[in-house]
Amino acid sequence: MLRPIKRRSKKAGLPPGSLVHIGEKKAEHVKITVREFDMDEFHETIMDSFEGCLALKDKSAMTWINVDGIHHAETLETLGECYGFHPLVLEDILNTDQRPKMEDYDTYLYVVVKVLSKEQAGIDTTNIEQFSMIVGSNYVISFQEKETDLFATLVDRLRIGKGRLRKLGADYLAYALLDMIVDRYFVILENLGERLESIEEHLVTHPDAGTLHEIHRLKREMIFLRRSVWPLREVISALLRAESSLITTHTHLYLRDVYDHTIQVVETIETYRDILSGMLDIYLSSISNRLNAVMKVLTIIATIFMPLTFIAGVYGMNFKYMPELEWRYGYPAILLGMLVVALSMLFFFRKRKWL
Amino acid sequence: MLRPIKRRSKKAGLPPGSLVHIGEKKAEHVKITVREFDMDEFHETIMDSFEGCLALKDKSAMTWINVDGIHHAETLETLGECYGFHPLVLEDILNTDQRPKMEDYDTYLYVVVKVLSKEQAGIDTTNIEQFSMIVGSNYVISFQEKETDLFATLVDRLRIGKGRLRKLGADYLAYALLDMIVDRYFVILENLGERLESIEEHLVTHPDAGTLHEIHRLKREMIFLRRSVWPLREVISALLRAESSLITTHTHLYLRDVYDHTIQVVETIETYRDILSGMLDIYLSSISNRLNAVMKVLTIIATIFMPLTFIAGVYGMNFKYMPELEWRYGYPAILLGMLVVALSMLFFFRKRKWL
Amino acid sequence: MLRPIKRRSKKAGLPPGSLVHIGEKKAEHVKITVREFDMDEFHETIMDSFEGCLALKDKSAMTWINVDGIHHAETLETLGECYGFHPLVLEDILNTDQRPKMEDYDTYLYVVVKVLSKEQAGIDTTNIEQFSMIVGSNYVISFQEKETDLFATLVDRLRIGKGRLRKLGADYLAYALLDMIVDRYFVILENLGERLESIEEHLVTHPDAGTLHEIHRLKREMIFLRRSVWPLREVISALLRAESSLITTHTHLYLRDVYDHTIQVVETIETYRDILSGMLDIYLSSISNRLNAVMKVLTIIATIFMPLTFIAGVYGMNFKYMPELEWRYGYPAILLGMLVVALSMLFFFRKRKWL
Amino acid sequence: MLRPIKRRSKKAGLPPGSLVHIGEKKAEHVKITVREFDMDEFHETIMDSFEGCLALKDKSAMTWINVDGIHHAETLETLGECYGFHPLVLEDILNTDQRPKMEDYDTYLYVVVKVLSKEQAGIDTTNIEQFSMIVGSNYVISFQEKETDLFATLVDRLRIGKGRLRKLGADYLAYALLDMIVDRYFVILENLGERLESIEEHLVTHPDAGTLHEIHRLKREMIFLRRSVWPLREVISALLRAESSLITTHTHLYLRDVYDHTIQVVETIETYRDILSGMLDIYLSSISNRLNAVMKVLTIIATIFMPLTFIAGVYGMNFKYMPELEWRYGYPAILLGMLVVALSMLFFFRKRKWL
Amino acid sequence: MLRPIKRRSKKAGLPPGSLVHIGEKKAEHVKITVREFDMDEFHETIMDSFEGCLALKDKSAMTWINVDGIHHAETLETLGECYGFHPLVLEDILNTDQRPKMEDYDTYLYVVVKVLSKEQAGIDTTNIEQFSMIVGSNYVISFQEKETDLFATLVDRLRIGKGRLRKLGADYLAYALLDMIVDRYFVILENLGERLESIEEHLVTHPDAGTLHEIHRLKREMIFLRRSVWPLREVISALLRAESSLITTHTHLYLRDVYDHTIQVVETIETYRDILSGMLDIYLSSISNRLNAVMKVLTIIATIFMPLTFIAGVYGMNFKYMPELEWRYGYPAILLGMLVVALSMLFFFRKRKWL
Repeated sequence: MLRPIKRRSKKAGLPPGSLVHIGEKKAEHVKITVREFDMDEFHETIMDSFEGCLALKDKSAMTWINVDGIHHAETLETLGECYGFHPLVLEDILNTDQRPKMEDYDTYLYVVVKVLSKEQAGIDTTNIEQFSMIVGSNYVISFQEKETDLFATLVDRLRIGKGRLRKLGADYLAYALLDMIVDRYFVILENLGERLESIEEHLVTHPDAGTLHEIHRLKREMIFLRRSVWPLREVISALLRAESSLITTHTHLYLRDVYDHTIQVVETIETYRDILSGMLDIYLSSISNRLNAVMKVLTIIATIFMPLTFIAGVYGMNFKYMPELEWRYGYPAILLGMLVVALSMLFFFRKRKWL
Repeated sequence: MLRPIKRRSKKAGLPPGSLVHIGEKKAEHVKITVREFDMDEFHETIMDSFEGCLALKDKSAMTWINVDGIHHAETLETLGECYGFHPLVLEDILNTDQRPKMEDYDTYLYVVVKVLSKEQAGIDTTNIEQFSMIVGSNYVISFQEKETDLFATLVDRLRIGKGRLRKLGADYLAYALLDMIVDRYFVILENLGERLESIEEHLVTHPDAGTLHEIHRLKREMIFLRRSVWPLREVISALLRAESSLITTHTHLYLRDVYDHTIQVVETIETYRDILSGMLDIYLSSISNRLNAVMKVLTIIATIFMPLTFIAGVYGMNFKYMPELEWRYGYPAILLGMLVVALSMLFFFRKRKWL
Repeated sequence: MLRPIKRRSKKAGLPPGSLVHIGEKKAEHVKITVREFDMDEFHETIMDSFEGCLALKDKSAMTWINVDGIHHAETLETLGECYGFHPLVLEDILNTDQRPKMEDYDTYLYVVVKVLSKEQAGIDTTNIEQFSMIVGSNYVISFQEKETDLFATLVDRLRIGKGRLRKLGADYLAYALLDMIVDRYFVILENLGERLESIEEHLVTHPDAGTLHEIHRLKREMIFLRRSVWPLREVISALLRAESSLITTHTHLYLRDVYDHTIQVVETIETYRDILSGMLDIYLSSISNRLNAVMKVLTIIATIFMPLTFIAGVYGMNFKYMPELEWRYGYPAILLGMLVVALSMLFFFRKRKWL
Repeated sequence: MLRPIKRRSKKAGLPPGSLVHIGEKKAEHVKITVREFDMDEFHETIMDSFEGCLALKDKSAMTWINVDGIHHAETLETLGECYGFHPLVLEDILNTDQRPKMEDYDTYLYVVVKVLSKEQAGIDTTNIEQFSMIVGSNYVISFQEKETDLFATLVDRLRIGKGRLRKLGADYLAYALLDMIVDRYFVILENLGERLESIEEHLVTHPDAGTLHEIHRLKREMIFLRRSVWPLREVISALLRAESSLITTHTHLYLRDVYDHTIQVVETIETYRDILSGMLDIYLSSISNRLNAVMKVLTIIATIFMPLTFIAGVYGMNFKYMPELEWRYGYPAILLGMLVVALSMLFFFRKRKWL
Repeated sequence: MLRPIKRRSKKAGLPPGSLVHIGEKKAEHVKITVREFDMDEFHETIMDSFEGCLALKDKSAMTWINVDGIHHAETLETLGECYGFHPLVLEDILNTDQRPKMEDYDTYLYVVVKVLSKEQAGIDTTNIEQFSMIVGSNYVISFQEKETDLFATLVDRLRIGKGRLRKLGADYLAYALLDMIVDRYFVILENLGERLESIEEHLVTHPDAGTLHEIHRLKREMIFLRRSVWPLREVISALLRAESSLITTHTHLYLRDVYDHTIQVVETIETYRDILSGMLDIYLSSISNRLNAVMKVLTIIATIFMPLTFIAGVYGMNFKYMPELEWRYGYPAILLGMLVVALSMLFFFRKRKWL
């Protein structure tokens, strides 16, 4: 998690527009799924290269091309030539280390956002992957680092043909994809909320170094989440403000809705950060309270037994002339004296509210 | 209180505009109260569904429909069809996890805010509920999570017919509802202020771990309050800036007044946060002062008795040839010596201002 | 000082524009002072109600009406009817819990600011009172919570007739009043500066819990001062930007001057806050230094006497066969050995720079 | 240094535009230096009052009047009448407690900035003095609190007549004065940088309470510097944006240069603040590390000698029947046992990495 | 690293536009490399002065002049006269202490940015050097403090003639240079990321004072990096917004790409700062945890052995009449009693979770 930037150095010095994949290679093969549909029909084809993609381009139906696996530069190059995308767009798609952004290239829009997912059921680390898409007049081309089930329900809705998806254009499909991604954020945040609650419980019952460690782990995770989600606001706000004819007024209302959700995600992360800071404060003061308690016990024990041991030491001295030692009741008298000293000490501590 | 987002996950993957209730179900039944009035008349009807609501819509009188309980999706669906509301509006009403906002749908405005209330007299947790309303040209439809007495006095004023409420339009009624909600905030803030004062008293007289706990509880409550109230500013500011013909110039002055109150609420929360931070500082330094006091006592006791015990130990040694032991006044002399040591220690401490 | 909001709850539920006094009642009677003047003449009348105030309104001379004591709703109601003020203005004047603001009602401007004063010579708490004024084309009506000497010199200048006050209009008079109020802020800040200096002196010579308490008291006072003064910037900035014909260009230069003063007041408060934070840091590190010093003494005493006492204990054992005990010079030898141990300890501490 | 505002209270209540000197009187006499020059000639006259200043005003040559010592209100009054300056300008010149600002009075500009200087070679306190100037079409009148050598090199350049100074107008002269002042800031900052380095060295070699004191002193100095320099940005930015015909396009480029320098000064102060905060952190953790070290030594000594002393105490008991005491090798055996205890303790500490 | 400003003082008092080199002299000689090229040809000449540079200026081919070593004022003066650059531009090039900025001088643009580099493989300090360039219609003149390999690959691409570099104008070349510089930032950030990871490892396994020192060193390095990189955003944003005809629309898309990279660099630095703060917190709490552990051991040892030693002391007293001493099994009985005391102490500690 510590590397907010990936191995970009292998690209330093190359000319701009060089197609070099940056980031971990997460899928074995590139899987291209082409879905063509209009109000009446729906066709789904799976391919593994963009050979003959010009045929796709000239159709009148809506086309949604989803690419799983983006490590293969040649595939993208073919696509780019076919659709005439700017080299910088292709370069950005290959670089999984992008900041979420929206760019308007007149005939198409380029959008990059981050997809959050939980690695595995058992382990609590949030996975951050990149999702890019190019939105044209009658096509959407989306790019994911590897195959996921993120859009499964959306594909089902599309296949069944119920609802607005088949009727409306590329901009609504793009919105629907973004909506799915932001909905997933809420799932991740719920999971984080549960982890916060479990930390809180630990804090109250038995705070230990593990609690501290977990607080810091969550804190760092927040830093990375924030970095992924914060620019999303700007992305959707840019889509809302875009003067592009690619975004219809009808979709505007829906984008505004996603925008609201994004703000809520951002605010929730901020709230979590505040709560975590509060937890850290509680942890630290509980530790310091415990130190106080330990010190008090030490002080009480020491202040009671030091004078007593001293008295015992005095009567253990070997002076020839110590009259008390000869007394008949010297021993019980001195034991009583010690008791009086101990009790008055305890009384003093109780008065000072240390006991 | 730890869950700033509610179980949204059950909605992830559904198409936008799906009517799914999100949040706790707080009311058993849906209660619909329809109040129709003009300058001369006032009618109140209670219904439990929106069957035949088209009849309501076409009246020339002002209509205020209040819905208590928003968990029933079908009721809202009927209403939505009847008035032709956008599906996203209905979806947002059902979702009690909204951020306060104002949306302008040309023929009507949609407003969501949060209502604060104290759960019970005894327990000091602030309850946050959602209030939405749709403001049309001659109707206001308001939605609450459950039945409350929040608008009781307003209904009375409406029934009696005194004042501006019966004369002015839907926008003034909407303002009056918002005004009631913001007035309630001040009641909650007063209660918080009283709790702050009680913590302060504890801090001065006997700070303990409970005080710390209470400070942190209030701090967290502030986080959630802030999150509820902060966007309210934008809501009312958006109403003020709205170019909608639904807001008359006359109501503008009143909205500006609510806006001022909102700013004051926000500033009070910020002030409370500052005061709480100061209290935490005082608590922590009082704890650290106490540790200092304890350490001082320990040090004084130890430094006085350690040398004395050592001296006693020396004369407890069993060497054959220890001339002092044979002296006639060795014992009282050594006791005197010990006294001198102890007193000079005390004198040293007093000089160093430790006593 | 802990209540940044006053008992507003008694108003919750009342219709907007209800004239209810909020805040402490600080004056017994309402005192109305009417001062009419033009370049040639000056008349002063004292009244106790606004009966017949219509007569005042229609005069051509400049009129300054000052109202001391604002708890009497009826008085304000009469005034409001006479001049035709908006009910919300009257409501705000009665509510001493306003945030400083400026509102433009076309034919008059409504301004609320806070007046600072020192309660008494002996006690160092800053008093915050509310001052409102309504500025019309040829009148200024000002409202104070109780009678003060704040404007004494201004009244004198007016009476004598020297200077610009008698020549220029209502906006210049309003400026003059604001200038007086902001000048008073500087007096309060000087007083706070003196208290800061006295804390600083304590910090250097003998920091104790009282110093900490005083720092926190000043810190809290800053929170409240800031809250009163910060919005004043906006008030005067709003007056400067107002497109109202009530503010002449000539007065603009003077308002800009007050604006500069306000910024300086705000910055001084910020500087004081920074200085107080620095003082808190110094206090805390001096406390922690002292703990260190105490710990060092304890450690030195303990590490010197523990081995010595152990040695004495060894030769206090009652074994039958302990050859050293029989030696002729065993006792002085062991005393010498103890001395060597103690001195090497001291040498070790000195090397570690603990002494 | 603790008084960010000077004795303004003596002015509270006076009418605006009253000419009262605020601040320390730093010069004995007022010294007025008049320099008249055009491309061919240069005249310098020293006067002590503005008697007959009308003569100065009507000349066609550029005139630079420098006034050292601004405590004499009458001098300023004469000047004001002669040139027709606004009373508020004169009032501000007399008040050495101004915030840096630029004001446009159509026919002249009024500029106030702060001049930094080091009091003396030995003592490291930064002196903050006020510099005001009035820039007209063919004159610049500058005001300093006392005579300094700040502009010595500039006067030389003017006298020699080389360079742009003699050719260009009043705005270029004003720029040149500001440039001198900002250049001086860099000298002060270099000095502060050296002090930072010397603190750093102390931190590494032998951090003590004096280091802390010095950090805090620098921190406070930064607060005051920041307050003086921050508004300077606005001043020069205001000059750049001014639509006044007094600032020519040619001078614009030069002002932009000073603006860059100002930003650099501000950023350097911010950097110093960050570095100082880091130093404070290092100091505090070094103190806390030392406490840890002390505590470890105490704990090691105590845990080694307490069991040993206990064992010695056991065999110092006077029971009649203690078989060990009779053993032939009881004494060396017990000494050996003690050694074993001590060594295993040390081994335990080493394993725990405390030694 | 402590000197954020360099010896500017040697320039204080000089007229603006004085050509004085500020900063360390990093190169021995000035090396001027002139590269002329168009789509067909490429010439490279190395010179050591600008004698006869007028010849360069009037060519129709694109000219890229790179100057390594900027300490020689005369060289720059010749260049300036030849091309007619503003004196302030030349002054800024000589001053290596510039803040990154972009200035539009109509016929040419002046750009200053900072170049980061790692001093040496072994030592982890980041070197900050200045890079300036002047971009004209058909020339780019770049200035570096010393000869580096930063643009090696770019020169190769230019020489080979493949790609856009030879076809496009001066603005694209300028972009390509900036792109190289920002790419280098990523290399530096990767290096910093590795250092962060190594600190993290230390924090988990064996945090010591060295770890703290390294955290603080990185923190300070961040302060300086931030200061160098932050204004770069403005520089590129200014290039994007510039209304200069020198920047073509075609290059705009590429500049937008560099802008995105810059934002990513800035955000990464912020993320590193957050991570470092978290590490400092972890370090401090691990230190405080260790103090707690040490205190607990001390307290446990002391509380167990103090009562035992006291008991042993009691029976070491020399009273004549102590019946227990005569008992047959007094000694084992008292040993047993001591064991009971010790075990109940241990039980008490275990119950309090201290063991």
